[in-house]
Amino acid sequence: MKARVTVTLKTGVLDPQGKAIEGALKSLGIAGVGSVRQGKVFDIELDGADKAVAEEALKAACEKLLANTVIENYRVELQA
Amino acid sequence: MKARVTVTLKTGVLDPQGKAIEGALKSLGIAGVGSVRQGKVFDIELDGADKAVAEEALKAACEKLLANTVIENYRVELQA
Repeated sequence: MKARVTVTLKTGVLDPQGKAIEGALKSLGIAGVGSVRQGKVFDIELDGADKAVAEEALKAACEKLLANTVIENYRVELQA
Repeated sequence: MKARVTVTLKTGVLDPQGKAIEGALKSLGIAGVGSVRQGKVFDIELDGADKAVAEEALKAACEKLLANTVIENYRVELQA
């Protein structure tokens, strides 16, 4: 089973990396860019076919390692 | 207009960061994890309401700055 986990900063948390990218895009002349925020994505291949088990394992993975839940949100998507 | 750009490594490109995460998940006892590959996600706020213009700008942003097209793929999703 394949899954994609997306980790993004919570609203209100400063994102200096995103700000830097925003500045770089503007100085490259890309028109119409407002704000940029950067996050991470993890493409995870899982053994087993049970969706509930997989979701549970991924949630544990996010809480323990992939996301800092103080400042980050995560979203788990299972892809068949 | 909001957009999400996802940048992932092309198939076949080694991903030591993903490998490290995979190892860490296994040593944390998360069951059933096969392989992990890490990518980046950019949430971009754009001025203007023209979808075609926005898509063109985002494509330029990816080619020039956000993705290294030698080793990375990118995907642009417009959200409304």
